[in-house]
Amino acid sequence: MKQIGVGVIGFGTIGAGVVDILNKNGSEITRRLGGKLKLVKVADLDIETDRGVEIDKGLLSTNVNDVLENPEIDLVVELVGGYEPAKTFVVKALENGKSIVTANKALMAVHGDEILAVAKANGQDVAFEAAVGGGIPILRAVREGMAANKVHTIYGILNGTTNYILTEMKDKGEDFGKVLKDAQELGYAETDPTFDVEGIDAAHKITLLASMAFGKKVKFDTVYTEGISGITPEDIDYATEFGFEVKLLGIAKFDGELVEVRVHPTMIPSAHLLSSVKGVYNAVYADADYLGPTMYYGQGAGRNATASAVVGDLIELARDKMNGVSGRVPPLAFNAESMDDAVIKPMGRVKCRYYVRLMAKDEPGVLSRISGAFGDHDISIESVVQKGRDTGQAVPLILMTHEAVEENIMDALEKIASLGVIDADPVLIRVEG
Amino acid sequence: MKQIGVGVIGFGTIGAGVVDILNKNGSEITRRLGGKLKLVKVADLDIETDRGVEIDKGLLSTNVNDVLENPEIDLVVELVGGYEPAKTFVVKALENGKSIVTANKALMAVHGDEILAVAKANGQDVAFEAAVGGGIPILRAVREGMAANKVHTIYGILNGTTNYILTEMKDKGEDFGKVLKDAQELGYAETDPTFDVEGIDAAHKITLLASMAFGKKVKFDTVYTEGISGITPEDIDYATEFGFEVKLLGIAKFDGELVEVRVHPTMIPSAHLLSSVKGVYNAVYADADYLGPTMYYGQGAGRNATASAVVGDLIELARDKMNGVSGRVPPLAFNAESMDDAVIKPMGRVKCRYYVRLMAKDEPGVLSRISGAFGDHDISIESVVQKGRDTGQAVPLILMTHEAVEENIMDALEKIASLGVIDADPVLIRVEG
Repeated sequence: MKQIGVGVIGFGTIGAGVVDILNKNGSEITRRLGGKLKLVKVADLDIETDRGVEIDKGLLSTNVNDVLENPEIDLVVELVGGYEPAKTFVVKALENGKSIVTANKALMAVHGDEILAVAKANGQDVAFEAAVGGGIPILRAVREGMAANKVHTIYGILNGTTNYILTEMKDKGEDFGKVLKDAQELGYAETDPTFDVEGIDAAHKITLLASMAFGKKVKFDTVYTEGISGITPEDIDYATEFGFEVKLLGIAKFDGELVEVRVHPTMIPSAHLLSSVKGVYNAVYADADYLGPTMYYGQGAGRNATASAVVGDLIELARDKMNGVSGRVPPLAFNAESMDDAVIKPMGRVKCRYYVRLMAKDEPGVLSRISGAFGDHDISIESVVQKGRDTGQAVPLILMTHEAVEENIMDALEKIASLGVIDADPVLIRVEG
Repeated sequence: MKQIGVGVIGFGTIGAGVVDILNKNGSEITRRLGGKLKLVKVADLDIETDRGVEIDKGLLSTNVNDVLENPEIDLVVELVGGYEPAKTFVVKALENGKSIVTANKALMAVHGDEILAVAKANGQDVAFEAAVGGGIPILRAVREGMAANKVHTIYGILNGTTNYILTEMKDKGEDFGKVLKDAQELGYAETDPTFDVEGIDAAHKITLLASMAFGKKVKFDTVYTEGISGITPEDIDYATEFGFEVKLLGIAKFDGELVEVRVHPTMIPSAHLLSSVKGVYNAVYADADYLGPTMYYGQGAGRNATASAVVGDLIELARDKMNGVSGRVPPLAFNAESMDDAVIKPMGRVKCRYYVRLMAKDEPGVLSRISGAFGDHDISIESVVQKGRDTGQAVPLILMTHEAVEENIMDALEKIASLGVIDADPVLIRVEG
């Protein structure tokens, strides 16, 4: 029976999960693959700590070159994370004739082009299903399941930490800081939570999804990114009242000319399938010209689900190694030479509905002046609700707009700020779906 | 540029959709494939009727051999449906060195083994993504996305017609016969609706899903099948009251030894993701040892969604033709020689919760005798509600059981029938999720 040698760089949580799957499901994998995935070497700086999985000590090494230069290794799993030294390792492995499986969304979103070019030049492949949506086979769905289509919309809940926080804020009515602290204690959020809560992780993922869905090179630094730290339990309550849920979405759309790609807290109708996605779960919604709307749901993170995606990719690439083919499916769904740079729609030109919360003085004429400012900027108001009464003081005024252009909204809010009728900065949440 | 020749047998709705996609998205497909899918010939007995898509008349033929024996054709799309002559065409095409794409669930569920053996012997492939879940790339997800896993549960809404009927019955409170008639007029149900409403179509699909998920040969005629014609608006209302939706599910489970596979009306909790699946949409839920629960949602039928799956498969097989490989991924997810026959769990041994509606005499002591019969058969009652009062007459008595063994339920109902305290046959709906 054919054997495909596997090397793993990074023996952390996911790495241990990969070893665990190869131990426990190895014989089932052989039934699927018609060959054996053989773990040849695992490299990590720490090879002493017990990871809770069975492994022959002889397979462990502190020297990454024992993986990168090992002639018995066909496929290298990169689980180091971040840009460097991950990128150096990946490039070296590709140059040594090894294909790559990685869960590293940051690396692929920022340096994907360069890495895929090295892979192609060396007749190797790079698979990164685990980089988006954890275990959900969403990249396969976009790359192959939607291959007959022009995809025009793809968006989703791409970060489990923020979805957990928003779910808890809603269920318990607690504020962001308190829930974040609890999430950190439970291990659902990092000590430095910036990457998750400020939307950077989701931005990495929507960069990859947008590129693959539209066949355009989307650059990570063109993604408009706004996190959830400004969301209050009050806004979540008001959203519920209006029939919406607040979710951090990565959103990408393509009109055939301009690509819009953005990450921000978003209100979606309670009846939308994404509204039922609670806690650390992820889900991606896509709409394509022939396929129509589809949705994909599952665990967006965690040892087992992520390792499932990594080993799924190992099996995929092992099939190619066994058949002596490479580059069978373009990693970004379209042939690299046919992908030109996305022309990004400026945020000011994005159109959607808006939820606006103002702290407005409870005085006669204030609503008229505020709604006048919106009207003057071509924004039509769908509904407006004043919360409570406190004559002469500021009370929450909640407005839902019809579809409007973002720069008009911004201009209207600037105008309103100049009227002297509101306290505090307005809260703005975009609406989708 | 490499060209891959495509022949289509059956120029009905889906066939026209396939031609439409090749016309409209051809250049995008080339960007993905690095080659061109070239439509060489379309065979149908009727080549006169306008299908509403652009096609060179010279490509049409009434002679199927113009496809089957055409040396320019690499891939044959079978859209004839049913067992024969579809099977003869498929076998002949495979023997002539052409790979097959089909949407034919009946053919694959009943004659899949034989067809796949012919394919293998001839170094060809068979792809049938369109056979299950319409456009949803669910077979790809099970075959490749879950490849690292042991899958233990897979179930879903696999038939759009019945889901449309159940959705309408709930929304309008109308009975099955009325809604079916409307659905037929709208084209959502066939003139002879048996295949859909009696669960046969869903049984074909769960046969394929179970085989692929568990790596066991599941025979179509071992699937327990029960349709929705016995469902009443009253039961749908009672389900809502108890916090459930009634859906026709195809359900398959594997405990490592026995496979259970069944199609029947099922009550699922209103909060379950599948409960939000309305109208003609389909969705599949799976649970696997590492990946955990995932869900896949989209249009389960219709020209465009089905054609999207067919053309997706054409692209997949064209990649293999261009690389000169075949059998890269086993069509049923596991290598044929490693798949033994599923040992089917008899329905009597299936365990689940049950909804039971009895028309019970409104008399003192009746509830005690009925609940006694359940207790004597080791069935514990979670809740019981009597609907209305009509002393001495029969009124609905609704019971929800805790998890119980099906043969115990059947024995208890037989015992209850012999007590002389109920009118009419009991209504039994299994509960899942």
